[in-house]
Amino acid sequence: MRTAFYISDGTGITSEVFGHALLSLFEAEFDHVTIPFVETALKAEQAKQRINDRYKTTGVRPLVFLTFVDEQLRAIINSSEGVCYDFLNAFVDPMQKELGIPAKPKTHRTHSIHEKTYDFRIDAVNYALANDDGANLKDYAKADIILVGVSRSGKTPTSLYLALQYGIKAANYPFVEEDMDSLSLPAALRPHRNKLFGLTITPERLSQIREQRRPGSRYASLRQCKLELDEVENLYQKERVPFLNSTTLSIEEISAKIMAETGLKRQKY
Amino acid sequence: MRTAFYISDGTGITSEVFGHALLSLFEAEFDHVTIPFVETALKAEQAKQRINDRYKTTGVRPLVFLTFVDEQLRAIINSSEGVCYDFLNAFVDPMQKELGIPAKPKTHRTHSIHEKTYDFRIDAVNYALANDDGANLKDYAKADIILVGVSRSGKTPTSLYLALQYGIKAANYPFVEEDMDSLSLPAALRPHRNKLFGLTITPERLSQIREQRRPGSRYASLRQCKLELDEVENLYQKERVPFLNSTTLSIEEISAKIMAETGLKRQKY
Repeated sequence: MRTAFYISDGTGITSEVFGHALLSLFEAEFDHVTIPFVETALKAEQAKQRINDRYKTTGVRPLVFLTFVDEQLRAIINSSEGVCYDFLNAFVDPMQKELGIPAKPKTHRTHSIHEKTYDFRIDAVNYALANDDGANLKDYAKADIILVGVSRSGKTPTSLYLALQYGIKAANYPFVEEDMDSLSLPAALRPHRNKLFGLTITPERLSQIREQRRPGSRYASLRQCKLELDEVENLYQKERVPFLNSTTLSIEEISAKIMAETGLKRQKY
Repeated sequence: MRTAFYISDGTGITSEVFGHALLSLFEAEFDHVTIPFVETALKAEQAKQRINDRYKTTGVRPLVFLTFVDEQLRAIINSSEGVCYDFLNAFVDPMQKELGIPAKPKTHRTHSIHEKTYDFRIDAVNYALANDDGANLKDYAKADIILVGVSRSGKTPTSLYLALQYGIKAANYPFVEEDMDSLSLPAALRPHRNKLFGLTITPERLSQIREQRRPGSRYASLRQCKLELDEVENLYQKERVPFLNSTTLSIEEISAKIMAETGLKRQKY
């Protein structure tokens, strides 16, 4: 099996995202190895040695996805036996020409505590946790968005992803049976109607997810799931709450769709 | 101000990560616009129109970071007035030659529910929430790692990031004063000693963070923070718990360091 190395003087996250996206276009299996924080010549030589050793033992040249700020460290990795993809560097020259200013590489420019938006993101994570699952009805004025939906429709992981990725303060509120019986919005949500975003899901998938949590329960039964989802979708329509069906979507996809549909301003790029 | 567009037939996350990493090398401000899920010719034409309109109103050509699987949609964006950076596509040919197999692009290959590791990541998020802040001492057998540290040293957001990014099941346990007085590991942690990873932080930064939470309290006082951190660092050393100082690190950096130091096998690339 071919080895893919992700090597960086930072976290390696940018290399991983790029390398993963590129390799996902090919129907092949890879052995993935990340070596982050390669910040000294010694560490770079050690990383080079690992690449070369892997070449020796497998007989195929490893793929190496690298991002480096330091020229000397970059050169050490590029002198290895790996096939090096220095994807960021490849675009620096054209971008310099287009912008008419020189690049000023600094380490830890991305994924660092020094990013302007870092504190927003941590505040948003804390907000999501404090306002998860209807735990707190008093802080909705501070929410950027309030996700609503039946239990286990994907609200919590989506709230956390919105916080971590975009710095968005997302509360979430689970509809319980009393809310649905009266087919109207709970009092706590009414003043924040313009921040509501609904999630729905197919009854089959919801039942499957709930079965894992409480096997054989009424809560997990297809009949109950169908009933709740019908009521909640009626409520969305009646109250004109925008909503989407999360059944086949990842939390990344749900979040990206919510951002696009609501026009919320993210705190991070 | 120059506009940077991130356009994709998927979530746009890959374009954002790449574009952000590239632009962070330049000392300039940009106006960022993401257009995800451009899955039809109509949507592509609308996106092209937005790029062209922006050129008209600002007088400078927008930068366009794009990832497309569909050739026709890609061509529509490339025919806009923007300066297009089709960074993934630029590497497909060399990678095809190196691997000796053709690329088979499919939409939603990354950041999708169909990724093999998606369920691991959602399970890990649920695990992190259920085992946050010492809430549950009985499920540590299922943990991949147990983060320990004093209150507000960064355990919770790090646990969530490890779950979302790497599919790692991270519990976290906050040391309280009784744990530290006796300078020994709490009983619940002892059987899982090999999974422990400690966080520490400078007393000044900890006091600052705690002040936001409970202003003027003993809990937030520099004296109390110093005391707790001294004790906890002694405990790490005595019990040989690996640890790192999170003061100047982002949760991405803490997580990447933990992954590298522990050799934990991630569930996602």
